[in-house]
Amino acid sequence: MIIITQPSATEAQIDSIVARVHEFGLDAQISRGASRVIIGVIGAEDLVREKPLAAMPGVEAIVPVLKPYRLASYDARGKASAVAVGGIMIGATHDVALICGPCSVESEDQIVSIARKVKKMGAKLLRGGAFKPRTSPYSFQGLREDGLRYLAEARAQTGLPIITEIMDARDLPIVERYADCLQIGTRNMQNFTLLKEVGRSRLPVLLKRGFSATINDLIMSAEYILSEGNPNVLLCERGIRTFETATRYTLDLNAVPLLKSKTHLPVIVDPTHGIGLRDFVPRMSLASLAAGADALLIEVHDSPDLAKSDGEQAITPDTFADLVPRLRAVAQAVGRAL
Amino acid sequence: MIIITQPSATEAQIDSIVARVHEFGLDAQISRGASRVIIGVIGAEDLVREKPLAAMPGVEAIVPVLKPYRLASYDARGKASAVAVGGIMIGATHDVALICGPCSVESEDQIVSIARKVKKMGAKLLRGGAFKPRTSPYSFQGLREDGLRYLAEARAQTGLPIITEIMDARDLPIVERYADCLQIGTRNMQNFTLLKEVGRSRLPVLLKRGFSATINDLIMSAEYILSEGNPNVLLCERGIRTFETATRYTLDLNAVPLLKSKTHLPVIVDPTHGIGLRDFVPRMSLASLAAGADALLIEVHDSPDLAKSDGEQAITPDTFADLVPRLRAVAQAVGRAL
Amino acid sequence: MIIITQPSATEAQIDSIVARVHEFGLDAQISRGASRVIIGVIGAEDLVREKPLAAMPGVEAIVPVLKPYRLASYDARGKASAVAVGGIMIGATHDVALICGPCSVESEDQIVSIARKVKKMGAKLLRGGAFKPRTSPYSFQGLREDGLRYLAEARAQTGLPIITEIMDARDLPIVERYADCLQIGTRNMQNFTLLKEVGRSRLPVLLKRGFSATINDLIMSAEYILSEGNPNVLLCERGIRTFETATRYTLDLNAVPLLKSKTHLPVIVDPTHGIGLRDFVPRMSLASLAAGADALLIEVHDSPDLAKSDGEQAITPDTFADLVPRLRAVAQAVGRAL
Amino acid sequence: MIIITQPSATEAQIDSIVARVHEFGLDAQISRGASRVIIGVIGAEDLVREKPLAAMPGVEAIVPVLKPYRLASYDARGKASAVAVGGIMIGATHDVALICGPCSVESEDQIVSIARKVKKMGAKLLRGGAFKPRTSPYSFQGLREDGLRYLAEARAQTGLPIITEIMDARDLPIVERYADCLQIGTRNMQNFTLLKEVGRSRLPVLLKRGFSATINDLIMSAEYILSEGNPNVLLCERGIRTFETATRYTLDLNAVPLLKSKTHLPVIVDPTHGIGLRDFVPRMSLASLAAGADALLIEVHDSPDLAKSDGEQAITPDTFADLVPRLRAVAQAVGRAL
Repeated sequence: MIIITQPSATEAQIDSIVARVHEFGLDAQISRGASRVIIGVIGAEDLVREKPLAAMPGVEAIVPVLKPYRLASYDARGKASAVAVGGIMIGATHDVALICGPCSVESEDQIVSIARKVKKMGAKLLRGGAFKPRTSPYSFQGLREDGLRYLAEARAQTGLPIITEIMDARDLPIVERYADCLQIGTRNMQNFTLLKEVGRSRLPVLLKRGFSATINDLIMSAEYILSEGNPNVLLCERGIRTFETATRYTLDLNAVPLLKSKTHLPVIVDPTHGIGLRDFVPRMSLASLAAGADALLIEVHDSPDLAKSDGEQAITPDTFADLVPRLRAVAQAVGRAL
Repeated sequence: MIIITQPSATEAQIDSIVARVHEFGLDAQISRGASRVIIGVIGAEDLVREKPLAAMPGVEAIVPVLKPYRLASYDARGKASAVAVGGIMIGATHDVALICGPCSVESEDQIVSIARKVKKMGAKLLRGGAFKPRTSPYSFQGLREDGLRYLAEARAQTGLPIITEIMDARDLPIVERYADCLQIGTRNMQNFTLLKEVGRSRLPVLLKRGFSATINDLIMSAEYILSEGNPNVLLCERGIRTFETATRYTLDLNAVPLLKSKTHLPVIVDPTHGIGLRDFVPRMSLASLAAGADALLIEVHDSPDLAKSDGEQAITPDTFADLVPRLRAVAQAVGRAL
Repeated sequence: MIIITQPSATEAQIDSIVARVHEFGLDAQISRGASRVIIGVIGAEDLVREKPLAAMPGVEAIVPVLKPYRLASYDARGKASAVAVGGIMIGATHDVALICGPCSVESEDQIVSIARKVKKMGAKLLRGGAFKPRTSPYSFQGLREDGLRYLAEARAQTGLPIITEIMDARDLPIVERYADCLQIGTRNMQNFTLLKEVGRSRLPVLLKRGFSATINDLIMSAEYILSEGNPNVLLCERGIRTFETATRYTLDLNAVPLLKSKTHLPVIVDPTHGIGLRDFVPRMSLASLAAGADALLIEVHDSPDLAKSDGEQAITPDTFADLVPRLRAVAQAVGRAL
Repeated sequence: MIIITQPSATEAQIDSIVARVHEFGLDAQISRGASRVIIGVIGAEDLVREKPLAAMPGVEAIVPVLKPYRLASYDARGKASAVAVGGIMIGATHDVALICGPCSVESEDQIVSIARKVKKMGAKLLRGGAFKPRTSPYSFQGLREDGLRYLAEARAQTGLPIITEIMDARDLPIVERYADCLQIGTRNMQNFTLLKEVGRSRLPVLLKRGFSATINDLIMSAEYILSEGNPNVLLCERGIRTFETATRYTLDLNAVPLLKSKTHLPVIVDPTHGIGLRDFVPRMSLASLAAGADALLIEVHDSPDLAKSDGEQAITPDTFADLVPRLRAVAQAVGRAL
């Protein structure tokens, strides 16, 4: 950590700052410029990160030097990780995985039918929501345990592992009974209670970036899960909220290579939510792969115009079938397989 | 709701759209322009709001006409509401309330001492966090029930009602035992599980705007609480995340008059988080009052440079003492009292 | 400037960095932490600010210490400035000025009539556009020199000094012939060609913040004007572009106290564009004053529903008449007069 | 255009609105819902787009139906366009073009050397700035006409056509003398004076998206150029300003397929500015191609750590050489060539 003083800081104030640093068990090295003094804090930055040194008289700015996360950092492992989801490896492995399915599980027939189709076309995992976070209390809120059961039935018939969202820590036992991977949705990325809880689960966790979370915030939320003992976290870019309204969100593909340099965790992209307009989901899927995604989360629905949620962004099985060979070609072009 | 068709929409597609509208029990009125057909959907918009009509072939855009909230809308009451928090009225009442206290409860001495001071200077309610949502798992997470007990002790000694945050639905019984008002923090504004739970509480709820939530999102989250039967919701603007980094957040005072035109609920402003720099909190407090705030949430700490959280944005009791008469003058200038 | 090295930086790389700093005529002080070396650059930061030290091998981050502006900084004068616009002082003076008028000058009758009305109610300066920057090439582009002549006629009849926008450096001679103050619009805040040109004018310049400019960007653009020799710059906050769409822009009142701490220049607020909805312009005018604005820019139009531009955000003379006494009360409450 | 009335609108107000629509020579069709009246305006929407109907009493909202641009719209041609830049076709053609070069022209040797290298590796056009828009007046502002001459020399030696920025309408004659394509920079995207001027040039124009411009704003600025008679406009996505600060901008690849559906103009991507961190430029170049870019603008510099501007984001010729075959593979995977 570096402490930059105000031009008006007195020697007594500087002495107090240095004394405070020493109190925390750290060393302070002083460089004197023409107008400001720079105090380099040497030692375990964790000890002072939370301290309100910026509130001390004479301090102009605090510059952290070390990253605020440990377990999630690339350096913690020195290589990229692969996480197994129901036997499918995602991350540091040659294959890129397609995770497909509807936004919501609507019926057993629906989820089984979609699962069969996407499996045949090349999907490796099945997604579908049983607990749905909805902006309006009057919207469809999901089939809850029935939805989980239908997902399990679809898995039984296709062999596809299941990824499904958990919204409430109290639902963990029941979701764990059915799912292969727990999804934390964008609106719960900083629901720290829930993060700690899934951090104690035996299941891997797909953590979606909050639509207004910085890349650093996302990594810190992964750190919550890791710090509770669950090493299997998958990060997911799914679009951020910006001033642009022509698309539902702005898919931030910059995040893909950046996350891969900062953490060892697998990075998934959800182009469906990231643009929110089904006509452009295929293009953004190709771009996501080229950006380095380890897996794609694509919403596929038999009858988007009858879907109970997000119909305007789901693609049909036919569109998906047309997309897969193009995805395969791009995957090969960037040294991966599908 | 208005459905705008694509220029290329066929008559058969238009007929299907109209038929779908009729299936939902609504009427459709058609206007034909040079290149597009406009279909006005007449009837209870709620019946179709969630339907993915935009996914039907031939549809270019859907324009909602009615607001997606009912109970929170100004029209639902036709006048502004006042909500009682431990006997203090906030909202449609002459007095503006000051809600003060530290970010975190750190000890009994600390909270009692601050409570006494702010009470003497004019604060009407006490705030302080016992359960703290922190970006890092390694940060101070709050004193939990001990913190609640200390708050209750401060109330016993000063008479100030208590507002404190709840982060986990499972903590509701214990927080209800001590608090006068439940606070939902910015990161939980769309934790719908928690919203439903506090919607069944007997206590009023102070709902902070998510730092990336639109004004409409905020009202929809209030609607969650109201729809569960709790009529006592206070909305709180606390700064949004923008590209500007010179301040911690961008305080969106536009939201104050806008919220008051759209809903009947009281509107509170938190200038402390809204700018995040203690030197400027007094100015933004004055501006918040002038914008029409019904109450202000101001962090006050005895020793900001020793605070366990947010020290850089808390003001001292001395600064607060200096601010109160200026707040009183502005309150009077806009027809309120303090 | 502080240079932070990568954990993997070699001694040879560190030596190269230090040598490069010395080449630029500056001194380097080295602090060694556990994993990184911190190099404090001592001397005139200007000499290295533009140098791509971040591109050198081994560098992780560069942290500037000194501000990149000189003439605009508060320290350059050590006190706030007042700028005279046609004899009216704005800034470090007791009085707050109201600058009113229509978005566009539409006819001589229109501008003279509005000028007379706002003058009677307390406005001290007249605004009106003769050259209009419009998003669409098919929109009304202004009356050009005719508009300037009508403004001059309004000044002749009322005595109100004129503020009007300049969009093209080639128009400077003609605009200078009529105006008392040159306005640089939000879309031209980083039109550096134009900034340099008005920096050589004898007239004061009202510089509007770009709707996506940071506070630092705004000050740098002021520095362009100041560095060409024109000391009379007025900064204007007018709303920034954020994710919120319920209002046209997000008025960033945080910028007011922040700008006043960082620069000595007067700070004006334009609540009309800042919210873009006429019903709420009065409230935001009050809030702007309380935040510390030295002047307000308020669009007033006789017949907003017939205006050639921005009719939906202009207030009528009647609304303005109702607002002035409330503004006066708030001005007094914060120690100013109107 | 659709006019939605307020629930409180009177019959007299509705009559006035309809009368106003008729005054403009258009027809009005009325649909009556339970609480609001919807007035469909039939006819040339251009006639009323600029009219402040929203300011009329009784109006709640105005919904445009037709797009505000004509010449730039996809429908204006019904197919994608190709634009020739010095003989190289960009857009609706099989080949994707690489446009490379340094941020600034720094010397004849520098630009000739870089031009030779990138030409050999596969670049088809040369970029380099002679007039530089810089945030600070104290930064390097470009070599001006000397820079243009050096670019011409590089073209003479390599045959690569030149794209260079123009900042001031007064420089048009001189820039036209040397350049093959005029670049409008991000900060000038709404410098309407400059847009009109280049709209009268015989040279094609590469129009960079303003970093806070919506996709619609970008198309409207293209419309300015087209409406002056210059049909050769190339649109360029180069990153937008968002809350994310880990990257310099957020590259909005969603814009690529969206622009291609809305306009017939070629779409270029500048991954260099879009992420602003040289380590990740290759990845984002691949993603840009997969998203459908017709050309890439990549900054290449011999010695980034000595560059006079933007050194931290330029890649070296070696990195570029390594990237080209990967770009070629992705281009083929999406049905293009390089």
